[in-house]
Amino acid sequence: MQKICVAMALAKVEMVLTKPVTFVTGNSKKLEEVKMILGHAIPFQSLKLDLPELQGEPEDISKEKARLAAKKICGPVLVEDTCLCYNALQGLPGPYVKWFLQKIGHEGLNNLLAAYEDKTAYALCVFSLALGPDSDPISFIGRTEDCPSTWNKGLWMGCSI
Amino acid sequence: MQKICVAMALAKVEMVLTKPVTFVTGNSKKLEEVKMILGHAIPFQSLKLDLPELQGEPEDISKEKARLAAKKICGPVLVEDTCLCYNALQGLPGPYVKWFLQKIGHEGLNNLLAAYEDKTAYALCVFSLALGPDSDPISFIGRTEDCPSTWNKGLWMGCSI
Repeated sequence: MQKICVAMALAKVEMVLTKPVTFVTGNSKKLEEVKMILGHAIPFQSLKLDLPELQGEPEDISKEKARLAAKKICGPVLVEDTCLCYNALQGLPGPYVKWFLQKIGHEGLNNLLAAYEDKTAYALCVFSLALGPDSDPISFIGRTEDCPSTWNKGLWMGCSI
Repeated sequence: MQKICVAMALAKVEMVLTKPVTFVTGNSKKLEEVKMILGHAIPFQSLKLDLPELQGEPEDISKEKARLAAKKICGPVLVEDTCLCYNALQGLPGPYVKWFLQKIGHEGLNNLLAAYEDKTAYALCVFSLALGPDSDPISFIGRTEDCPSTWNKGLWMGCSI
């Protein structure tokens, strides 16, 4: 179902595009991955853009980021965010994982679960596509299977679209 | 030193104010507290405003919130944010405490420290004042003494400016 939605959305994108979609990332590997997965039917270019990061639910954060990026660029954009979610913590640290990783590292991230038997985690990749500054963004969410949280490091480093 | 800075900033506010400072809050108790502490030299009014909450360091989040509020209101604003910071977690969950409280409650917040001997926490209250849409906000930061994290509930509920 998700695949059909993505295909329909992309077909719509192809119809209305007048310029390449700007994939907001400073990571050239991510652009390569997007091109590899989506093919060349949709032209992409990448741009590192300084955007405010919002608090909230992952999909809402991503949609708002796409809105801001499309306004800044005045054209179609694709944005991406990745979250690390612990089941015992109801999906947290989720979109705030960057700050936890920065301040307490992988060991600190694992330690957050010390009180719980359930040590499972999943990664969430949220992409949002906005066709322009006045378009409502469409989000695509990919979720890994639950993995032991001690796999964080590998899961985190290996996490891709 | 902090008190002198606040007094100087407030004297400046009195000089340049042409309309009341809007204290962005939906909580009437907070407005009462601000008036009680700062007196009536500066006229305040309160307004509940729907502003995006940003990620980042507490002071940066607060300053950006003040900027956005001042742009929205086209006048002087005061914004306030409170963070719960664990020393063992290098100040986290900090500005994200609202989401932790919402998803895992007080018990979950305490559980985050299960792996650590250091169970201390402090609350951070950050106020930012922007005199108008084009002014650089000034921040005032209040920090409680370190308390045992098991006091969270009381500390959190009792936390005021």
